[in-house]
Amino acid sequence: MKALQRRTGIALWRQVADQIRQSVLTGLAANERLPAEAELASRFGVNRHTVRSAIAALEKEGILRAEQGRGTFLNDRKRLRYPIGQRTRFSSGLQDQARTRSGRLLSSETLPAPPHIAKALSLPSGAPVIKLSTLSTADAVPISAATSWFDASRFGEIASLYAKTGSITASLVRLGVEDYTRKSTGVEARHASNEDLDLLALSPGAIVLLTRGIDIDPAGRPVLYGESRFAADRVELVIENQAAETLA
Amino acid sequence: MKALQRRTGIALWRQVADQIRQSVLTGLAANERLPAEAELASRFGVNRHTVRSAIAALEKEGILRAEQGRGTFLNDRKRLRYPIGQRTRFSSGLQDQARTRSGRLLSSETLPAPPHIAKALSLPSGAPVIKLSTLSTADAVPISAATSWFDASRFGEIASLYAKTGSITASLVRLGVEDYTRKSTGVEARHASNEDLDLLALSPGAIVLLTRGIDIDPAGRPVLYGESRFAADRVELVIENQAAETLA
Repeated sequence: MKALQRRTGIALWRQVADQIRQSVLTGLAANERLPAEAELASRFGVNRHTVRSAIAALEKEGILRAEQGRGTFLNDRKRLRYPIGQRTRFSSGLQDQARTRSGRLLSSETLPAPPHIAKALSLPSGAPVIKLSTLSTADAVPISAATSWFDASRFGEIASLYAKTGSITASLVRLGVEDYTRKSTGVEARHASNEDLDLLALSPGAIVLLTRGIDIDPAGRPVLYGESRFAADRVELVIENQAAETLA
Repeated sequence: MKALQRRTGIALWRQVADQIRQSVLTGLAANERLPAEAELASRFGVNRHTVRSAIAALEKEGILRAEQGRGTFLNDRKRLRYPIGQRTRFSSGLQDQARTRSGRLLSSETLPAPPHIAKALSLPSGAPVIKLSTLSTADAVPISAATSWFDASRFGEIASLYAKTGSITASLVRLGVEDYTRKSTGVEARHASNEDLDLLALSPGAIVLLTRGIDIDPAGRPVLYGESRFAADRVELVIENQAAETLA
């Protein structure tokens, strides 16, 4: 257990919450009962009120659950392993890890392409593009919020198709793109914005993994530029390399 | 600009620091002067003391620099793009992005393999393994702290070789491993531990990107299991996909 740091800008209850979350994610058994408040308070050297605030935050995040008269338990929820290799989509990426998956259209907008979007999509600056904001969930838990950009002249129907199918892949198939691959993906991490705290049902101070990438069709033409924010406590991004070359 | 949130567990000065850092990373020109304290205070709706604390934290992280009598400036430091594809090493991964790179041995230890390490290295549980703790810097700025595990019977000299060469790749070559590739990499994000705050010269609340992976030799045998913590403010992890398959 790490010593808590005072006067760091991070409240003690949040540091306690982070440490409990950490120990949950690194090996405490699922459905195990959390030690009593008094014991946690003495373990962390804080008062019970601080422990209570930490536990409340973790309940809100779905990491702990209180059972009346029995105590507080660790939820049985592992991080989803989300592949970000060459041919990955949200729906197939999570196969077998979630019983239900869904994609919800939050908003769509047609606007002149800002310079970096135009560049990513190989369009002239200012060409009309569609900006799609979506939210993906697995077993009713929000996993990622995404902003995706499309050439409006080629994919004019993308928003209405997404609203129907809940899937970018399925929408693109109906627009004639049978296949696409990731050209490159960048991964950063940052504190969630207020908007993402709401969308992803996180408590303040939570972290998001931000992926940024361009998908291309078999002819090498950009299909979409997308930025996704994953709730870092719920997801591990995974790159699997086929060792074809070295095993040949 | 986002509204600050009170009573969230994150001090106002840290929220102000996060917002300044964000705006720096998303487009303010390098070497531009930061607005005066009074202006920032009114912009964020906080007092000047809070702004001063935020600026002090960002100076410590190397994002801002104070120049006597002239004001506070944004440092010209972009995020390093760090490739995590199949054939990536720290030293070659950063080529052209840093004038100097170094690897420092922090500690090494021989111990019986814990179960998950034994499994990763395809060794019997309890077999002797070497645990190497290292710190990688680019242009004198700490970029990542890593813990790497090796089969002690095969790589007994790894610590002394690393201490000499500052490079795992160079050390492995001397031990007969001419080539190796990443088999898989997992990426998570979390708040930096106290130890990593020190090693990476971060201020409390800072985020690390955690990568976990197994490297294999051309015969498919595990060479090392490694966990690296990257200072998230300084690095973007990048996966480039050769579109060979689709462009063939």
